[in-house]
Amino acid sequence: MDREKQYSTPIDVRFSDFDLFGHINSAVYFTYLETARIKLFRDVFHELTAKGVYVVVGKAECEYKLPIVLTDTVVVTLWVSRLGDASFDLSYKIHNNAEKTFALAKTTMVCFDTASNKTIAVPEQLKNLV
Amino acid sequence: MDREKQYSTPIDVRFSDFDLFGHINSAVYFTYLETARIKLFRDVFHELTAKGVYVVVGKAECEYKLPIVLTDTVVVTLWVSRLGDASFDLSYKIHNNAEKTFALAKTTMVCFDTASNKTIAVPEQLKNLV
Amino acid sequence: MDREKQYSTPIDVRFSDFDLFGHINSAVYFTYLETARIKLFRDVFHELTAKGVYVVVGKAECEYKLPIVLTDTVVVTLWVSRLGDASFDLSYKIHNNAEKTFALAKTTMVCFDTASNKTIAVPEQLKNLV
Amino acid sequence: MDREKQYSTPIDVRFSDFDLFGHINSAVYFTYLETARIKLFRDVFHELTAKGVYVVVGKAECEYKLPIVLTDTVVVTLWVSRLGDASFDLSYKIHNNAEKTFALAKTTMVCFDTASNKTIAVPEQLKNLV
Repeated sequence: MDREKQYSTPIDVRFSDFDLFGHINSAVYFTYLETARIKLFRDVFHELTAKGVYVVVGKAECEYKLPIVLTDTVVVTLWVSRLGDASFDLSYKIHNNAEKTFALAKTTMVCFDTASNKTIAVPEQLKNLV
Repeated sequence: MDREKQYSTPIDVRFSDFDLFGHINSAVYFTYLETARIKLFRDVFHELTAKGVYVVVGKAECEYKLPIVLTDTVVVTLWVSRLGDASFDLSYKIHNNAEKTFALAKTTMVCFDTASNKTIAVPEQLKNLV
Repeated sequence: MDREKQYSTPIDVRFSDFDLFGHINSAVYFTYLETARIKLFRDVFHELTAKGVYVVVGKAECEYKLPIVLTDTVVVTLWVSRLGDASFDLSYKIHNNAEKTFALAKTTMVCFDTASNKTIAVPEQLKNLV
Repeated sequence: MDREKQYSTPIDVRFSDFDLFGHINSAVYFTYLETARIKLFRDVFHELTAKGVYVVVGKAECEYKLPIVLTDTVVVTLWVSRLGDASFDLSYKIHNNAEKTFALAKTTMVCFDTASNKTIAVPEQLKNLV
C-alpha cells in the first residue's frame, strides 16, 4: 500500500446534490468518484478516446459511512489498488480533509476497443500514469 | 389558440429532483420540458440528427407558479406557439392534470446544420408534425 | 430464490442521462435503483420518515454488463435478497424486459432513527411488505 | 449599469453535464446559475432560511449563444440588475473568462415567508449585500 500514489481532488458540491433529508443523494457519490477519476486520467482518456478506446466502469461499489451535509467540505482521494492485464481497480476515499470519512469506494475499470467491439489489455500509457 | 394541437406527457418525478426544501429544484423544470419535447419530436429529431441537423434550444424561459412537492402528480402539456422560417417557439404548461399549474414556460428552437455550421430554415417534416 | 417476490418498474430514461459516448452514465444506474426502490417502499418510507426513521443506503454495488443506448427500453426488477435484524439487502436487475441484462446490483439498507441518532432494527412493517 | 458590483465564480463542469452531442445540456445552465447565486448569497440565504424565509426563483430565462464543449473553461458572472421592493433580478453571463460568451441569463428572485405562507419584501440584509 505504501508505494501507491494517491491523488486528491476537491469536489464542488452543488445545491441540487442534496436530497429532501439535507444529505447528498447516495447516487451522487458515484458522480464525485467520476469527477475525481476523470481529473486524474483526463489527458490519457482523451488520447485513448481519440483512438476508439473507451475506459469504462465494469463494476462500482460504495460503502457509506457518514452523511454529507450542507456545511461539509468534500474531497475525493483515489489510488490504483490493483493493476491487472485486462482491468484495473481504483479505490477512493470521500472525506473532508480532516477527521470525517464519508465513504469508501472502488471501481473496476475495463478498456474497450470500439473498432473490434471487445475489451482489450490495459494500455501502457495508463499503467505508466499511476 | 384554439387551432393549436396540444401534447401532454406525464413526468416520472425522481427522488433526486427534490431539493433540501422538499421542492423540485428550479433547474429540473427545464429537464421536464426537454423530456416532453423529446417525446413529441423523437422520431423527427432522430431523422434530422442522422442528417447532421440538430434542433437546439436558442432561448428558454420559465415562470414558476407553485412549488412541486412529493405528493404531486406532474404533467407537461406543450404546443407550438410560433412557427417561423428560421425558428419556432414551444410553449409549455407544467401542471397536475387538475387545478394546479406549477409553471408556464417557453423555448425558442433553432435548427442547426453541422455540415455548414450554420442555422437553417425549419425543415418541413418538423412543420408538418405539429 | 424461488420464494422471493420480485417487483418490476419501468424507468423513464431522460435525454440528460446519456453521456458523450451515447451511453447512460454509470452513476445514473444508481438513480434508477433508487427510483425502483422508492416506488416499492413508498408508503412505508413515508410512514417511517414521519416517525423520524430514515431507511438509508449503507452500501451499494453495481456490475455493468451492457451499455444502455438511446433505443433501449429500461426496466428495474428488484427483490429482497437478505432480511437481517439490523439491515436488509435489495438485489436488482436492470434489463430491457427481453434478452438484455444491462446490470446487476445490490444495496444494503439500514434503518436509522433520527431521535436517538442510531441505527435500529428493521421495522416489522418493512419486513411484512416484502 | 456601471455602478453595479459583479461577482464571478468558476464552474466545476462535470462529465455528466454533457449530452450525446458533446455539449453541456441546456437545462444544466440553470444549475450553473444556481451555483453562482448560492455562492454569492450563501450566508444570507442560510440566515434567512433559519428564520423561515426562502429566497426562491420566480422566473428564469436563458439565451444560449454558443455551445459549451469538453475543452471549455466555464465562469458565471452575476450582478443585481433590478432591486425592487417585492422582488429583485439577477443577471448572469456564462463565459470562458476570454472572448466566448456561452449564454446570457436572468432570474427574478422572490422572498417567501413560510410562517405566513406569503411573499414578503426583500429583506434589508439582502439589499445591503449587493
